[in-house]
Amino acid sequence: MALSSALDDFQSRSAALAPVLAALAAAGDIDGWRNEAYPVMENWGDPPLLKMERAACPRFGVRAWGVHMNGYVRRRDGLYLWVATRARDKPSYPGMLDNMVAGGQPHGIGPRDNMVKECAEEAGIPAAIVARLQGVGALSYCHQNADGVKPDRIFCYDLELPADFTPVNQDGEVEKFELWPIQDVAARVRDGFDFKYNCNLVIIDFLIRHAIVMPENEPDYGALVRGLRRGG
Amino acid sequence: MALSSALDDFQSRSAALAPVLAALAAAGDIDGWRNEAYPVMENWGDPPLLKMERAACPRFGVRAWGVHMNGYVRRRDGLYLWVATRARDKPSYPGMLDNMVAGGQPHGIGPRDNMVKECAEEAGIPAAIVARLQGVGALSYCHQNADGVKPDRIFCYDLELPADFTPVNQDGEVEKFELWPIQDVAARVRDGFDFKYNCNLVIIDFLIRHAIVMPENEPDYGALVRGLRRGG
Repeated sequence: MALSSALDDFQSRSAALAPVLAALAAAGDIDGWRNEAYPVMENWGDPPLLKMERAACPRFGVRAWGVHMNGYVRRRDGLYLWVATRARDKPSYPGMLDNMVAGGQPHGIGPRDNMVKECAEEAGIPAAIVARLQGVGALSYCHQNADGVKPDRIFCYDLELPADFTPVNQDGEVEKFELWPIQDVAARVRDGFDFKYNCNLVIIDFLIRHAIVMPENEPDYGALVRGLRRGG
Repeated sequence: MALSSALDDFQSRSAALAPVLAALAAAGDIDGWRNEAYPVMENWGDPPLLKMERAACPRFGVRAWGVHMNGYVRRRDGLYLWVATRARDKPSYPGMLDNMVAGGQPHGIGPRDNMVKECAEEAGIPAAIVARLQGVGALSYCHQNADGVKPDRIFCYDLELPADFTPVNQDGEVEKFELWPIQDVAARVRDGFDFKYNCNLVIIDFLIRHAIVMPENEPDYGALVRGLRRGG
């Protein structure tokens, strides 16, 4: 892939691509148009080469970023994790289990600000609680499906929630929230395919950082730790 | 490298290697004999093929594991990290800066039990405080120096310490402990070579998990996150 020298900045490249993407969408080659611009770059922090409609990125194998949050409660008998079930009418992965709050990372907003915004929209978490949001790292993976290739990355956040807080979805994207004992979450991630594929990774990272998964109880501990940070 | 079919278990392989290592040490080819057996295996949790004297492992490029702990204090004005200075008479890296507590991972003890033991020996941390020790993951790296090649891995732990606790070294391996503001630690890791090489990695992992280093303030955020989990 090479950049045309006739298109030498972010604006001209983005403008040249827009009608091409619109034509592909009109021909049915891009599903689920979101009207949301993603920055195109190799690494977060690079100056974006151009912006591209979110739904088009996998078609071109363009890397996308997301923000995911594990909301948890510390009880006397251990950790509990809030598990979301995606709305049945969501275009992608309807009805699957999800992290408490998650979203794509569009152009023009920082990851933490984006995460804060999603916490309000998806779970109705008040600002005073969201202020405790803790950035904890990032994951990288590559996923291929009928939409194309996603060599994507996720910025991960933890949020410890008061025992008396109950999330309430504001934007219709979540069917329900349930508070699960952490061991039940771990078992479902290990034994099933009920969570949206990349949410599993965010939970495994949480399980490792909170010593639910340890070298003492998991023969594949090293492979799991390294597997969450794939890619160049 | 192949295993002799005449030596078909842990005991016979370890026994066959021992006199070879002793001869190498007598010839001056293995420095700093520790009299400490390391398990030889590709991944933690594999049945060890044999055991090998710690000081001999880099000569053979044999993977070793260690346990490192970041001891921190939460004050109103932010996080503080306990920084150790290695004793001047330590055979390796004398006088260099170090994590609060760290040690090699020998054969016959689990990582967490080993870390607990080191916390008592190196910093005099009482059992009631060590009980809060938090496993947070693992790092992998490869280091080459005059001793050989170290394709090693580190199990990482966090320990939040009370503001009124002061560590006291028990085994003569630490010259002093100092409590540094986390930003001073971050600056020293970024700008200098004062920390023992692998302790830098353990601190960078801490800085990422505690959102001192964030996508918003570090252009190399992604490279740092992935760089801490190198190796197959």
